Amino acid sequence: MSLDSSIPSHLRCPRTRTRRVSDTWKPAVPAYSALGPQSIKQLVMAYFGVQIKSDETKGQACAAFRTILQSFNVDDGPARHDLVQFVDGQGHLNLIAVAYWEEPEKYHKWNDKPAVKSWWSSDDRLNDGVGYFREIFSPRMEQFETIFTAPGPLEGVSILLGGLTEPIIEHGYWGSMRDRLPLSQTDTMDPSGELALKQGTPAKGGRVIVAGHQNLTLIRSGEDWSRTDGEERRTWFEDIQPVLLDGMNYLRDDGLEVGCYCNRYCYHMDKDGKVEEKGFGVSLWRSLSNLESWAESHPTHLQIFVTFNRLAKKFKELVLYHEVSVFDASAQYFEYINCHPKTGVMRAFAA
Amino acid sequence: MSLDSSIPSHLRCPRTRTRRVSDTWKPAVPAYSALGPQSIKQLVMAYFGVQIKSDETKGQACAAFRTILQSFNVDDGPARHDLVQFVDGQGHLNLIAVAYWEEPEKYHKWNDKPAVKSWWSSDDRLNDGVGYFREIFSPRMEQFETIFTAPGPLEGVSILLGGLTEPIIEHGYWGSMRDRLPLSQTDTMDPSGELALKQGTPAKGGRVIVAGHQNLTLIRSGEDWSRTDGEERRTWFEDIQPVLLDGMNYLRDDGLEVGCYCNRYCYHMDKDGKVEEKGFGVSLWRSLSNLESWAESHPTHLQIFVTFNRLAKKFKELVLYHEVSVFDASAQYFEYINCHPKTGVMRAFAA
Repeated sequence: MSLDSSIPSHLRCPRTRTRRVSDTWKPAVPAYSALGPQSIKQLVMAYFGVQIKSDETKGQACAAFRTILQSFNVDDGPARHDLVQFVDGQGHLNLIAVAYWEEPEKYHKWNDKPAVKSWWSSDDRLNDGVGYFREIFSPRMEQFETIFTAPGPLEGVSILLGGLTEPIIEHGYWGSMRDRLPLSQTDTMDPSGELALKQGTPAKGGRVIVAGHQNLTLIRSGEDWSRTDGEERRTWFEDIQPVLLDGMNYLRDDGLEVGCYCNRYCYHMDKDGKVEEKGFGVSLWRSLSNLESWAESHPTHLQIFVTFNRLAKKFKELVLYHEVSVFDASAQYFEYINCHPKTGVMRAFAA
Repeated sequence: MSLDSSIPSHLRCPRTRTRRVSDTWKPAVPAYSALGPQSIKQLVMAYFGVQIKSDETKGQACAAFRTILQSFNVDDGPARHDLVQFVDGQGHLNLIAVAYWEEPEKYHKWNDKPAVKSWWSSDDRLNDGVGYFREIFSPRMEQFETIFTAPGPLEGVSILLGGLTEPIIEHGYWGSMRDRLPLSQTDTMDPSGELALKQGTPAKGGRVIVAGHQNLTLIRSGEDWSRTDGEERRTWFEDIQPVLLDGMNYLRDDGLEVGCYCNRYCYHMDKDGKVEEKGFGVSLWRSLSNLESWAESHPTHLQIFVTFNRLAKKFKELVLYHEVSVFDASAQYFEYINCHPKTGVMRAFAA
């Protein structure tokens, strides 16, 4: 098996920091990273959500969600999007359109269009009984990595990149996530600054805008169990999914104690809102280091890790992947409108 | 809490390899490393064993063991030793005197004394119905690290070093063991070469001498539960010790598949052979990397790790420590006399 670095050749640079493992490291099983054209320098990941706080507002919320989706169908709209839903820690259903752009310029052009800009800034959003949020991130390619357990299909933002590497070196050891980030060649990506309220008060509802901080970290880590059957399918539902959801619920409810600002386990849905057999956890962290520590030492994640590893040889059709990004403070935007105060990163201020 | 590097100041050098964590890393709980005088350049760790293969030879074996102990009481004998026993995978009781010297020169002078040299080389050893082994290692201080969960008491070879560091930086993350080794500043410590039979045939018994290889790795990882009582004692016996022994038995029986040549879970004993409430696992590995991979990804060790971590706050009196060494090929000596063919590193040839 010929191995390649997960770091694209055009992003390799003289190192001031070494990989954790030696150059002779051979992962026990192959894994792959998404690989895109050099022309892509910086991505945009945008989570547009509606929060349904009561049955009475559900129709209104769904209509608003459709309006958001329609706004994608204009010039400079996202290159692709996923539709997902999740129930949050307060029991509210949330719908999210996760939209991706190949460059910030295009996103900004789109976001400045009156149909987008004035819809989000309108006072109608404050008065129609629906909760809204948008969380927009823009990682430079040096701040971005992915892993796939199979050579396709691609998922999430990686679909924009379009390709995959050879089997990668940086895999099968704790620290390999960091080593896949091109920036790790020269930077420890320590966090600095703090989340800060720029506008509004979470407990009062209304419009709240939060400023991020340097090296805030996002992971989207997903599974597709739609093609499993027989013993593999039984193993997914009986052995894997329960421990995965235990870990996801821990982060959702108590993650702040380990540096996790928020976590949502989302299920994909089709255009008619029908839930599919595909999901991902998406969480925001104070730092890559906090994410690493939870993953490699907290019982809730080690239980997931050991269960996956123990059963890995049973899986032929289950697809696993993740994408991890570390952001500049200026490359984050958090806005919440009439959402409950534990929504998204607002939770950090409730503590 | 002021933190210091586990690497003694006189062994720090310009790095070509970085620590896994950034300089701002703060372990969640303190840990310490043994610290000795600069005059100590290279240690000697010697495991002198007798193997009792039947009740009939027990008296003979114990007499031989006493002879070994008496040989320590001469000029240039070991600075200290531990007496331990363990039952191996074939069900045989083994007694070991683990002896430590502060410098190889002294060990060699001692080893060349007729009372030592001729006793071990005598044909009587081949004919007295007892199994014997000696496994001698000599790590340079750059190839040696320790960790203690409490600021004393010292254990094992660390007693020779006599002191402890301040709370250390390199702790609380996978890879910290490697980062505590001074050589990790400039070297990945990859293994090279293979174990090789220099004399004899394991299956035939008699005298077998095995040559080691570059960067073979030893860990002695110990626990003292003698001062525990009440809930802490109950937790040790009911929750911790069983999973610890499961992991130790896995390595003893099936460790070759993860690069572990041999593992012995040893119990300390007093001069009269009375077993004490103190023990350690001592294992030999193809490489530091193999040891790391088992520790951080194998279910048998993660179970130990999670159980310890989950219950750590219950422990006031339980003392934990380990010492890890990586050896030059020339700094290893393995000799077995009439031991069964799965004894020590001979097991590697049975596979």
